Amino acid sequence: MASRVGNAHPTIVFGELSGKVVAFKVGLLGLGTVGTGTVQLLQDRAGRHSLMQELEIYRVGVRSLDKPRAVNLPDGILTTDLQAIVSDPEVEIVVEVLGGLEPARSLIMEAIAHHKHVVTANKAVIARYGNEIFDAANAAGVYVMLEAAVGGGIPVIQPLKQTLGVNRIHAITGIVNGTTNYILTRMQAEGSSFDDVLADAQKLGYAEADPTADVDGLDAGDKIAILASLAYGGRIKLPDVYCEGIRQVSQTDIAYAHKLGFTIKLLAIAQRETPSAPSASSAPSAPLLSVRVHPTLIPQSHPLASIHGVYNAILVEAEPLGQVMFFGPGAGAGATASAVVSDILNVAAVLKTGHLETESASLHPLLACTHQDYCAIAPMSELVTRFYARFLTKDHPGVIGKLGTCFGSHGVSLESVVQTGIHKHLAEIVVVTHNVREGDFHQALAEIRQLEAIDSIPSILRVLEEGSGE
Amino acid sequence: MASRVGNAHPTIVFGELSGKVVAFKVGLLGLGTVGTGTVQLLQDRAGRHSLMQELEIYRVGVRSLDKPRAVNLPDGILTTDLQAIVSDPEVEIVVEVLGGLEPARSLIMEAIAHHKHVVTANKAVIARYGNEIFDAANAAGVYVMLEAAVGGGIPVIQPLKQTLGVNRIHAITGIVNGTTNYILTRMQAEGSSFDDVLADAQKLGYAEADPTADVDGLDAGDKIAILASLAYGGRIKLPDVYCEGIRQVSQTDIAYAHKLGFTIKLLAIAQRETPSAPSASSAPSAPLLSVRVHPTLIPQSHPLASIHGVYNAILVEAEPLGQVMFFGPGAGAGATASAVVSDILNVAAVLKTGHLETESASLHPLLACTHQDYCAIAPMSELVTRFYARFLTKDHPGVIGKLGTCFGSHGVSLESVVQTGIHKHLAEIVVVTHNVREGDFHQALAEIRQLEAIDSIPSILRVLEEGSGE
Repeated sequence: MASRVGNAHPTIVFGELSGKVVAFKVGLLGLGTVGTGTVQLLQDRAGRHSLMQELEIYRVGVRSLDKPRAVNLPDGILTTDLQAIVSDPEVEIVVEVLGGLEPARSLIMEAIAHHKHVVTANKAVIARYGNEIFDAANAAGVYVMLEAAVGGGIPVIQPLKQTLGVNRIHAITGIVNGTTNYILTRMQAEGSSFDDVLADAQKLGYAEADPTADVDGLDAGDKIAILASLAYGGRIKLPDVYCEGIRQVSQTDIAYAHKLGFTIKLLAIAQRETPSAPSASSAPSAPLLSVRVHPTLIPQSHPLASIHGVYNAILVEAEPLGQVMFFGPGAGAGATASAVVSDILNVAAVLKTGHLETESASLHPLLACTHQDYCAIAPMSELVTRFYARFLTKDHPGVIGKLGTCFGSHGVSLESVVQTGIHKHLAEIVVVTHNVREGDFHQALAEIRQLEAIDSIPSILRVLEEGSGE
Repeated sequence: MASRVGNAHPTIVFGELSGKVVAFKVGLLGLGTVGTGTVQLLQDRAGRHSLMQELEIYRVGVRSLDKPRAVNLPDGILTTDLQAIVSDPEVEIVVEVLGGLEPARSLIMEAIAHHKHVVTANKAVIARYGNEIFDAANAAGVYVMLEAAVGGGIPVIQPLKQTLGVNRIHAITGIVNGTTNYILTRMQAEGSSFDDVLADAQKLGYAEADPTADVDGLDAGDKIAILASLAYGGRIKLPDVYCEGIRQVSQTDIAYAHKLGFTIKLLAIAQRETPSAPSASSAPSAPLLSVRVHPTLIPQSHPLASIHGVYNAILVEAEPLGQVMFFGPGAGAGATASAVVSDILNVAAVLKTGHLETESASLHPLLACTHQDYCAIAPMSELVTRFYARFLTKDHPGVIGKLGTCFGSHGVSLESVVQTGIHKHLAEIVVVTHNVREGDFHQALAEIRQLEAIDSIPSILRVLEEGSGE
């Protein structure tokens, strides 16, 4: 780790410090929205935790020195040599807020190799390369902190590591992508189409020019992989995470869902497949999980149904705790900077206890991510859930009976059937099923597609399963 | 602190431990609901954080050895000598779940004097004696942890200490007493009276035989004092906390509030009186606060309006974070045990880093409560808020004009006036004001009481102020 010797005369003196005058030197990689918010927060310490006075912005790595900046930094702090920051013996904590996979990943790995602690907001890198990053960090005896990677400023990563760790987590159900929640909220409120709202969201800066990562559920997939890994104490292979986005959510389905008492939300879900049967041995074993992202019909009375706009919320169902929910801004410079700086503070606090200076000391077991086994992820065909499906049928009389027969022969039991709409001379039938194995449901659908009366099946959506926490 | 020497052969061996086989010996004071939940959680470690395997239930102090218990403990663990537990050199962490002021307070003080770390769920003791307890703990170099004291199992204390500490907290607004929220929820849903619902809640075990602490807002007062102290980094004198309970909330007012778009909740509020003007100096200074508990009309769209039954929720408004809300079960054996054991784990984790074994080490600055200054609390007369008031008037015509004149002469501006009800030959007038200084409002009321047309003023309630977070 970075030497603390010779730090008695920090470049910048931060008011009066009680006790040892030692600043923790922070090397910041990136000065975009989050980086700028982080600098602003570190420069404005009045009325915040007193430990913040011991944090020093030592270097800030940027692409261009000439670009106008919203923050003032003393001469010599800005540099285009990011490599030099992660290898500088003076730097103790490297904060990566570059975003994107490279050079972020390589710089994080190099920082760790130089025994720096790392704070990152980069869910994409952590979800993809968490295994090598945490292996390296644990070997080097440094922390990699990621509060800002999920839920913006909402404290959820540290509570999962610390306070919720004594629980067996049954399920984590989250609205963790603000862009898609904003789009769905507006589609719901205004009756507009996905394409129209997306175009407007892009104009307003709520959606990227290339919206793929958000609207196809990939960003939410990265985040639920990270949450699942922390909640279940095992690594997650990202390709095992099923991701379905909101492009196919139509106004027609939003209206039907509303009539049936549901709201459509893009949910990121991680759940234990056998929540009621923990292993008899006292050794913690990685459970079989379902980890997935998809648009979901949820009852209007569900706590997540009232999370609107760009807000995020994460509902944790745990034993013996019960249901807890965390709600707040999922993005934005201030919120994300709050999470980044709280991570820096958490590392500084542990370093201040001096523990890494002793021979026998180990990494703080509630800050470090030391699990190495991979979680077993169940295939989607094994998922037990409810479904919503919308059929267009040519041949009105008798078709419901035929649908019911096909479903029944595959063990799919129907909770409700609505047959109201007429659309281009076709009748519209909407069904909601009880809990069913996803594989069985798809087999029934394959059979239904063969029926002559069926014109098409424009929508298939999942409905939140019956039973809380399962 | 308790010696770790000689712990190599713990009484109970907890499966295979990696590295050093050292158990953290826990002395539990109390085996009531929360104590029993704590033992059950500590005895059932599969699928929870692996560090739990290093916690050992070493002694459990109870009043009677003969009482039947819901948990099995090895011989010699149960004892009626609580004094012996807090002074036992083997015990490293004392968990106080006795409740009540004495002997809880004295045992906590003695445990600290014997260099034990303390975990407590006792909001009454902490709110009253926090000053002497934290002084003693800081002098002895031990931690006093209190996650279970507020919000049951909801992680809110640690997030306030750690993740939110980098923020300037503008306001904390909480539903922190499950009993009163249960009563108000049922009054709202059923149209029943306070007395009827209270009697039923007592039968169902949701309210104590002596409901004073809950229904008069005292329990919520203890809790908001604790939250304010952590959020603002200063001590709170409990008598400075204004507490008004829900006994006077009538069905008539609930109905009027509903018509006006409000829900009545017992809110515990701590807010910075000058949120937009932090001091220019970088030294953190204790801000002027308003800390109070009272029934409050909140807009039906407010996040706290949909918190029903015994659930708790805490809304934090902070800069630069924005609004975050924590929601979950505010009581119950499992939820509270979750918080208690997470505190034990947090202490064990810090001890495991070995920091207190080094000369230069200090207490972990995000776990310890080291602030010593007292917060300045503004008197209620200085509060700026909105009011709801219901008047019974004898003399219908012209009375609204007279009311308006009295209010106007004290700078009270009215947002709405409703004049509909007839009650025993008296007209009923309900007003909601804009933001007003509480002292000015009461001066206007004193004048209004002198009006011949006024029969009585049955209800005066506060309405959540205009503007978010102020």
